[in-house]
Amino acid sequence: MNKKPFIHDDFLLTTKAARELYHGYAEKMPIIDYHCHLPPAEIAEDKRWDDIADVWLGGDHYKWRQMRTCGFEERLCSGRGKDGRASGWERFEAFAKTMERLVKNPLFDWSHLELARYFNVTERLCGASAKRIYAKCNRELAKKGFSARGLMKRSNVRVVCTTDDPVDSLEHHLAIAKEPFGTRVLPAWRSDKASKIENLPAWNAWMDRLAAAAETPVRTYDDFLGAMAKRHAFFEKAGCVVSDYGLTEIFAASYTEGEVARVFKKARAGKAVTPEEALKFKSAWLFEGLRADAKANWTTQLHYNCLRDLNGAMFDAMGPDTGFDSIGDWSVTESLARLFDRLERADALPRTILYSLNPKDNEMLASVMGCFQKAPDVGKLQLGAAWWFLDQKDGMRKQLETLSALGALGTFVGMLTDSRSFLSYTRHEYFRRLLCQKLGEEVEKGEIPNDLKWLGPIVSDISFNNANRYFGFGA
Amino acid sequence: MNKKPFIHDDFLLTTKAARELYHGYAEKMPIIDYHCHLPPAEIAEDKRWDDIADVWLGGDHYKWRQMRTCGFEERLCSGRGKDGRASGWERFEAFAKTMERLVKNPLFDWSHLELARYFNVTERLCGASAKRIYAKCNRELAKKGFSARGLMKRSNVRVVCTTDDPVDSLEHHLAIAKEPFGTRVLPAWRSDKASKIENLPAWNAWMDRLAAAAETPVRTYDDFLGAMAKRHAFFEKAGCVVSDYGLTEIFAASYTEGEVARVFKKARAGKAVTPEEALKFKSAWLFEGLRADAKANWTTQLHYNCLRDLNGAMFDAMGPDTGFDSIGDWSVTESLARLFDRLERADALPRTILYSLNPKDNEMLASVMGCFQKAPDVGKLQLGAAWWFLDQKDGMRKQLETLSALGALGTFVGMLTDSRSFLSYTRHEYFRRLLCQKLGEEVEKGEIPNDLKWLGPIVSDISFNNANRYFGFGA
Amino acid sequence: MNKKPFIHDDFLLTTKAARELYHGYAEKMPIIDYHCHLPPAEIAEDKRWDDIADVWLGGDHYKWRQMRTCGFEERLCSGRGKDGRASGWERFEAFAKTMERLVKNPLFDWSHLELARYFNVTERLCGASAKRIYAKCNRELAKKGFSARGLMKRSNVRVVCTTDDPVDSLEHHLAIAKEPFGTRVLPAWRSDKASKIENLPAWNAWMDRLAAAAETPVRTYDDFLGAMAKRHAFFEKAGCVVSDYGLTEIFAASYTEGEVARVFKKARAGKAVTPEEALKFKSAWLFEGLRADAKANWTTQLHYNCLRDLNGAMFDAMGPDTGFDSIGDWSVTESLARLFDRLERADALPRTILYSLNPKDNEMLASVMGCFQKAPDVGKLQLGAAWWFLDQKDGMRKQLETLSALGALGTFVGMLTDSRSFLSYTRHEYFRRLLCQKLGEEVEKGEIPNDLKWLGPIVSDISFNNANRYFGFGA
Repeated sequence: MNKKPFIHDDFLLTTKAARELYHGYAEKMPIIDYHCHLPPAEIAEDKRWDDIADVWLGGDHYKWRQMRTCGFEERLCSGRGKDGRASGWERFEAFAKTMERLVKNPLFDWSHLELARYFNVTERLCGASAKRIYAKCNRELAKKGFSARGLMKRSNVRVVCTTDDPVDSLEHHLAIAKEPFGTRVLPAWRSDKASKIENLPAWNAWMDRLAAAAETPVRTYDDFLGAMAKRHAFFEKAGCVVSDYGLTEIFAASYTEGEVARVFKKARAGKAVTPEEALKFKSAWLFEGLRADAKANWTTQLHYNCLRDLNGAMFDAMGPDTGFDSIGDWSVTESLARLFDRLERADALPRTILYSLNPKDNEMLASVMGCFQKAPDVGKLQLGAAWWFLDQKDGMRKQLETLSALGALGTFVGMLTDSRSFLSYTRHEYFRRLLCQKLGEEVEKGEIPNDLKWLGPIVSDISFNNANRYFGFGA
Repeated sequence: MNKKPFIHDDFLLTTKAARELYHGYAEKMPIIDYHCHLPPAEIAEDKRWDDIADVWLGGDHYKWRQMRTCGFEERLCSGRGKDGRASGWERFEAFAKTMERLVKNPLFDWSHLELARYFNVTERLCGASAKRIYAKCNRELAKKGFSARGLMKRSNVRVVCTTDDPVDSLEHHLAIAKEPFGTRVLPAWRSDKASKIENLPAWNAWMDRLAAAAETPVRTYDDFLGAMAKRHAFFEKAGCVVSDYGLTEIFAASYTEGEVARVFKKARAGKAVTPEEALKFKSAWLFEGLRADAKANWTTQLHYNCLRDLNGAMFDAMGPDTGFDSIGDWSVTESLARLFDRLERADALPRTILYSLNPKDNEMLASVMGCFQKAPDVGKLQLGAAWWFLDQKDGMRKQLETLSALGALGTFVGMLTDSRSFLSYTRHEYFRRLLCQKLGEEVEKGEIPNDLKWLGPIVSDISFNNANRYFGFGA
Repeated sequence: MNKKPFIHDDFLLTTKAARELYHGYAEKMPIIDYHCHLPPAEIAEDKRWDDIADVWLGGDHYKWRQMRTCGFEERLCSGRGKDGRASGWERFEAFAKTMERLVKNPLFDWSHLELARYFNVTERLCGASAKRIYAKCNRELAKKGFSARGLMKRSNVRVVCTTDDPVDSLEHHLAIAKEPFGTRVLPAWRSDKASKIENLPAWNAWMDRLAAAAETPVRTYDDFLGAMAKRHAFFEKAGCVVSDYGLTEIFAASYTEGEVARVFKKARAGKAVTPEEALKFKSAWLFEGLRADAKANWTTQLHYNCLRDLNGAMFDAMGPDTGFDSIGDWSVTESLARLFDRLERADALPRTILYSLNPKDNEMLASVMGCFQKAPDVGKLQLGAAWWFLDQKDGMRKQLETLSALGALGTFVGMLTDSRSFLSYTRHEYFRRLLCQKLGEEVEKGEIPNDLKWLGPIVSDISFNNANRYFGFGA
């Protein structure tokens, strides 16, 4: 029996080249987390926790899904069902037992990385070890430095970009900016609610909030564009350099300004719009949103092929973001090409990172990107890091394989956490180890030259420098 | 030159961990074959064979396809064409020559596994060895124990579920049940013919058979549901616990009971229905079929993305299931989500195993599944084992990779044969070896903990225990 | 640090079996390049070059795309933009710097293979080595034998099939045929322009050229078929044995002869046709084109899932084939099945090689193929070698994996260059190394029998013999 703990210095690094690349060029690079879902309020207040069950199971739908799969009742998972929530220990134990079945699942690796890096635990988490580990983790949580900011410092995080609604006051960002602490915390623009015109009451309520935030009436499509421009400028002033669109398909139907104006007016009047009308409006706003990003020299992120809230019964009981979303399988090549073509013709295509939740799209995306790369940007269009359901070894390897085969790996802006947790920075470590292991294996086989003085800086670039340059952080 | 035969004790097991997992935890587990196409009559009569050509080439369209690819005339393949059938030896020799070109094809591995396990032949099958092997196999076939039941016993098969039409009398199942022999032989419900309303004459003839079997007229949609309920209960009494749907797309259009009733009546009157009408009927029946399965506490299997009978000229000459089907490439996420959502809202979603014939769907399916997992079932929704065209190394590896990355591998109900042959139990061995090899390789690389006391029982669970629990066999 | 150069005798061959297969059975086989884009004029005139920048960057959109990705202005890439073209040295240096970021990209491997095989350079190409390598390459270019024909001779090329328009006079082919030089240079039939009825002016202009070439008026659909038949016969006489269709989707709509005749007439009269009309015409011509190929005993190649000219702004500035095409993601199973079914019923399905630009189609294609294989042809339907964006390690491995798992690898007709360059024969070497490495690795793991006397000839067949037999070259 191997006595080495699962997580150790050379975790996932099986070749000499991989180890040299990781320890020499990746490990010590700071972190830029250009897309995450950290709550700014928790950073502003420097939040602390006293129960690992709350840290791990308070909002992590990845974990809830696997616990449900393993047959645990909702009170032991999210605790948001009608039967209430079990105690912290009960939930932790249920998760520990779930771990016994998660062979090869990223949760298994992430959790053990977090245990090792933040809690000094190297034992395998299972039903038998749960009690010990639960107690140990909770003792660690009580220590000085185990806070939102403390964790970001400890993880060597230079910049994070949160995910914010255009109507948000950004009060917490402004508060954080007044007392800097080593990690720059920037807002990011996520205007999805502007687009969901099918759900009229929610959409109109949001438009009213936009009017209030922008201090201008929002009655017409032009009003809307004007109000959004004001908020865009407000975000820009607060340091925002990146936007994010969460989409099913890519919206790029044909429309005229007049048509879109009529659809907008109809919807503002509370009259339901047809699917065709909705698509026209969405197509128009997606175009305008990206045009605004280009004008402000921001980077746009397009996250698509997500189908949300599949399980209506659970959605009714628990609301969104509780683990009932899936990968979609739309075909988007033609619409994506049309959107980019229109933007390019208007000289308004921003730097864009493309993320499909369906890995079948990888090769297609990498080839579409190549049609819109343009000087003087380096890697203007990017194939985004593997995310959500794909944020695991197989997903990452496929992304790296496709990107390097169809694009220029050396220009890649690398990893992000996409996470709600302050412990997730280990995902950057995980990604870097996989990157180094992949390159190291190929060096070993002679598939790439054994020249670490060349490969090492590429690893450092992907770990930190490329993102720093691409987003203009100057960190 | 390596003197070791191709098939040996450690076939496909290249690491110490893989060998320990296989020999310690997989090899001796009995077999549950919860989906196959064995003819119950052949079990009832305890069929025997005297020519290996008939055993291997009597009905195996996998083999015929490759023989056609290698340029052999139909009389040497299926022998069902207009030119009649060649002799057993001629057909066997043609297959042996075909094998020379099947490098890396699963037929190559399966055939050699069957030769080694059932015929004690370890020589490579090719034109030069064909004569020897043909004679040896036929000598073995003549031996005591080389019968349908003998092979099942020898293969340590505890349960098989066949594939049966709701109108079937199940006479052979009833006969077998009267003289048990160690393997439980259960019927499974496959109602596809009820759904094929486009082919009116065949559909109406089938409805007439249903009426006869259920001893009730089938004039209306309600009659139909009632008759099906009677047959469902009859199957249940005969031990059935699993249903199976063979689909192109997932049918989940919107419909009203009234619309479906009208479509049914129209079709029963012999009037052709429109594609929209057909889809409404199919959607309604798929929903009702699964609802009935849930009520009876059965497990549903959905096999989809199959396009059948592509080659009309050959279909006209030879009929169905002769090797002229293919993988389809429909996009089904939205309809699958709709079907499951409707069922869940009606508290009528059965345990379901999802099988797409197109591997592009793997990640999507594994993510949709996660939205409908529910206590107290463990692994209520399953990503089915790689099947048909995907029942080979690459297909199995992809299924295991996706399932483990997006789901809980430890809950997987494992392998089935999907076969018409009594020699196919070696596919369980093949699957188990691949599973152990995959885990063993990752243990070796430190990707999963080197803890065989944890991994071993998971291997045993996937080999046997999980299916035994999931289907409630208590075997 | 490994002192061995990147490209060496055993490049990509890490096992003993792989090395024996490559050096014993692949390396010395001649080349048949049955699909390329070499300009016949350059062969006829035995073209020479004096600047490696022109050889490498004169027309290679693969390289331009990566240079743009790395932030180089158009004058340094294609030199076809409005800012003119930089000097050869400047462009070469920009490419050398681009190479620094192309880790794992096929361009990296291809370029170093070309440097090693044709220029005797084994140093890694980067900014620092660019000057030295530029000078050395240009010195080599000046040497005797460094010409179109010299390179083909040096590369042991027995046959090439170029890509030719039915209206082409084939004057260069006829000239080459009069002074043979060891490589047979044959035309191939690419009639795509006949199909592009949406662009009426270009389509009508082409029809006029067809009329002139066939010396017959082309007013009606029947005229068109007649004129095409004359040109088909003319190509056949010039040695053509292969056709090629470049498609988005597979066109197989329903139509009547009357409908198609009306659409043709309308378009010839300069009236725009509807998308439905266009599809009917395209479907008809695709059927007729393949029927003609079958009648002439040619092989048809279907290249599909390409979306072209995505970036309209760049297309307007630079025209087609300048690096602004992408992979498409159409679903084609049903239409492909319909096309083949119709042809088979008419006894008019030619030998066909299927190439999808989207790797998601691999398994589907390999399964559709299996439905139409037919004696006496061996491997009548083929899964084409990985091409264009997929012509790299990952793409090739996937193609080999799928073909061998679903088809008969031993019947594969192997690699082609698809290239405009006389240096691209190294892609055959690259493919052969990957094939031998794949088989060698599996031999090493016991996944295929360690019997090189069996595997070796299969490697030779895939390298040369199968294509030689399949196309009937008798080379």
